Amino acid sequence: MNELIRQVTEANRMLPQERLAILTWGNVSGISEDRTCVAVKSSGVDYASMTERDITLTDLDGTVLSGGAPSTDLPTHLALYRAFPSVGAVVHIHSTYATMWAQAGKAIPCLGTTHADYFYGEIPCTRELTAEEIGTPADRHYEKNTGKVIVEAFSGRDPSKVPAVLVKSHGPFTWGPDPATAVKTALVLEYIAKMAYLNKTLDQSAPNGISPALLDKHYCRKFGENAYYGQKKSGNTAR
Amino acid sequence: MNELIRQVTEANRMLPQERLAILTWGNVSGISEDRTCVAVKSSGVDYASMTERDITLTDLDGTVLSGGAPSTDLPTHLALYRAFPSVGAVVHIHSTYATMWAQAGKAIPCLGTTHADYFYGEIPCTRELTAEEIGTPADRHYEKNTGKVIVEAFSGRDPSKVPAVLVKSHGPFTWGPDPATAVKTALVLEYIAKMAYLNKTLDQSAPNGISPALLDKHYCRKFGENAYYGQKKSGNTAR
Amino acid sequence: MNELIRQVTEANRMLPQERLAILTWGNVSGISEDRTCVAVKSSGVDYASMTERDITLTDLDGTVLSGGAPSTDLPTHLALYRAFPSVGAVVHIHSTYATMWAQAGKAIPCLGTTHADYFYGEIPCTRELTAEEIGTPADRHYEKNTGKVIVEAFSGRDPSKVPAVLVKSHGPFTWGPDPATAVKTALVLEYIAKMAYLNKTLDQSAPNGISPALLDKHYCRKFGENAYYGQKKSGNTAR
Amino acid sequence: MNELIRQVTEANRMLPQERLAILTWGNVSGISEDRTCVAVKSSGVDYASMTERDITLTDLDGTVLSGGAPSTDLPTHLALYRAFPSVGAVVHIHSTYATMWAQAGKAIPCLGTTHADYFYGEIPCTRELTAEEIGTPADRHYEKNTGKVIVEAFSGRDPSKVPAVLVKSHGPFTWGPDPATAVKTALVLEYIAKMAYLNKTLDQSAPNGISPALLDKHYCRKFGENAYYGQKKSGNTAR
Repeated sequence: MNELIRQVTEANRMLPQERLAILTWGNVSGISEDRTCVAVKSSGVDYASMTERDITLTDLDGTVLSGGAPSTDLPTHLALYRAFPSVGAVVHIHSTYATMWAQAGKAIPCLGTTHADYFYGEIPCTRELTAEEIGTPADRHYEKNTGKVIVEAFSGRDPSKVPAVLVKSHGPFTWGPDPATAVKTALVLEYIAKMAYLNKTLDQSAPNGISPALLDKHYCRKFGENAYYGQKKSGNTAR
Repeated sequence: MNELIRQVTEANRMLPQERLAILTWGNVSGISEDRTCVAVKSSGVDYASMTERDITLTDLDGTVLSGGAPSTDLPTHLALYRAFPSVGAVVHIHSTYATMWAQAGKAIPCLGTTHADYFYGEIPCTRELTAEEIGTPADRHYEKNTGKVIVEAFSGRDPSKVPAVLVKSHGPFTWGPDPATAVKTALVLEYIAKMAYLNKTLDQSAPNGISPALLDKHYCRKFGENAYYGQKKSGNTAR
Repeated sequence: MNELIRQVTEANRMLPQERLAILTWGNVSGISEDRTCVAVKSSGVDYASMTERDITLTDLDGTVLSGGAPSTDLPTHLALYRAFPSVGAVVHIHSTYATMWAQAGKAIPCLGTTHADYFYGEIPCTRELTAEEIGTPADRHYEKNTGKVIVEAFSGRDPSKVPAVLVKSHGPFTWGPDPATAVKTALVLEYIAKMAYLNKTLDQSAPNGISPALLDKHYCRKFGENAYYGQKKSGNTAR
Repeated sequence: MNELIRQVTEANRMLPQERLAILTWGNVSGISEDRTCVAVKSSGVDYASMTERDITLTDLDGTVLSGGAPSTDLPTHLALYRAFPSVGAVVHIHSTYATMWAQAGKAIPCLGTTHADYFYGEIPCTRELTAEEIGTPADRHYEKNTGKVIVEAFSGRDPSKVPAVLVKSHGPFTWGPDPATAVKTALVLEYIAKMAYLNKTLDQSAPNGISPALLDKHYCRKFGENAYYGQKKSGNTAR
């Protein structure tokens, strides 16, 4: 558990270092190998002063096992852990370009191999939550329902091949096998979100994706059965 | 008073650190708890060499109590302190994206939850000052009238729920209970101003705001009666 | 003369520090008080290794008095010193947004008070040089003729009130009473060039300038006869 | 050979320093003077931990002489060394603006002298690879065929005068006489790619290039027979 807390602390610190979050924005969580315990940043903690004591441990229902009040977004993280068994860590940020696409309510199209090297196709955007799903200011259904619309958006998609989503009017979530990888995915997401914005403003009529053959090639040379990117020892984990 | 000067000095120094101001641009002021004395950056002072001795103290009419000539924008700050009793500090900057919206003469629409987490609705833009209100190069009515059009723009709005404004053709002012919070609000304003620009250039026909339910939810989970963002001890001040 | 060399060296070093130039791009010169001697960066010198020995001294005809081959742009600087007696220093850079406006062949309109605080109206763009004025690859008329079209563009304008120009398809020149001020003007030019780009892409149909009353007010409260910006001792030099 | 490895290591390290690459993205190679041996970054190596031991040596067929698995892009580098005898080093990156132009499938037009100072005309973009040229996820023809379409795009062009290309849907390659120069060219490419984007979004109907006379003048004053940019000793190598 100490190792999980260490990894989650370190991954949270990466957010401001990689310019993915300012102030208290953003949070990273990780789940224990037996999937009984989740470590997440406590709510409203400033990155500058954050230590391992600012990580809260909860069970999969969100009951606090140790630490302060967890990030308000925890119920969304928990919904993803429950629905996606391959996910070991979740990141939520408000990085500029990815959040802008979420505000636009548009999926980020796969416009090049930089995207295809990490995501097997477009980054989907959820539907809008209904007023009922948002609920009243005081109840606590909103964050859980945010998880629900994410899971809906992945109906028919493999979350391990597209480890990111945009929540409409809100911002991105990314995930991965461990906290550091999930943060790297958030960094790549912001990078491709910026390039896709530039492409769309340069030429609104541009095609909306690369050829299936090129998508297959780039994704599979890193993550497919016969992946040949990276050193043999580390296999296809060179993400 | 020494504590006020210290806070105002520190908040002014945050402006270049957070890339909100270059050269001598921008100024932060704070008002004493009894609302008789205002501390503000002296006029034309470079941030690199600024010390507590570059803070001027004045009364609410702008009469200098100690220090050099105050920021030329002081009369605008004073107008806000007189009109908005909840305001403890005022910031004026020329940050790129917020100033660009001011130059466009357009309110910044609330396009996502990043905005709704800090501002309960759009950031209004003032009307243009008339030639009479601008006055002659030598008289000193302009800065006071800038305050007047800001106060006008908040007719029917609660300045504590929307702690920022754009002055047409000029730039933003933000405020808050204390200098550090007012500067953080300026940082958030610049962030959402950039995202709103990106959204509008990606898709000019995009809707101009999020749903009222989502706005209520995000603003109120941080600042409402039943706020649940942040740690219990610090209540809803986790801004 | 040593003081001039020191100021020119320091001002050249400011270019990469303020992100106004990469590699060997950009050059700053200064003229002696008696206007007989010009100090300028030597040609092709990298900023990282630049010392005072990389400053070349020439007379007003460009004859080298000491140092290596001067910047190839020297004849343009000399043309400005000859035509504009109030100019004590000249800066040439390829900063991103100002250069982009020069490539567009468009003047930068005065869209707000940030602009009006430093420039009394739009930043003009020169006409295109003719093929004859450009000349052959080997002759040396081009740089001198670049000065000629700048001077043409200021026919009827006061170069001390608009201390910057865009050379069509090339980039900006700025000037001022001394090298440090001319570099600060280049920094402001890049800042307002970016904001004007953002304004024009946000709303192509936006008006092309602020009101004459507001332009007068902002420019004159800093630089007019009754200027009241800055501290009394330093007068209106708080640029 | 040690000197080549040292230069290639240093040039790879420049990529993140100059903000041309994040994570493991990008690779620089160099060829020995006798053109029998190529040094290239090993595949999937992180810049933060890279040492000279992360450089792989191969022959011109890609057979490893020493070190780990080479960058997956090596076959593209080798195709360029075989086709372009003047090329001593090759760089491949995914820098934001140049990659965006590659994703758009558009050549970068020469819109100003900043471009003309380094590239004698537009930066071409390759055609799309066919599905056959891309091949299956497991075979290794794709990277070689990427080299093939680059060489095709330079039919009738001199690669020493336009030392850069955009591979459609992928990203840029640059080259030069040595690794450091090839990286500087990548830096300039990204700079002009950004300015060209800004120009095209400011004014879609703008002309697509500068006059031939101006292109000749700027390119030839640095690289022509009678070049006069830079210091005599270093000739026209002041790139």
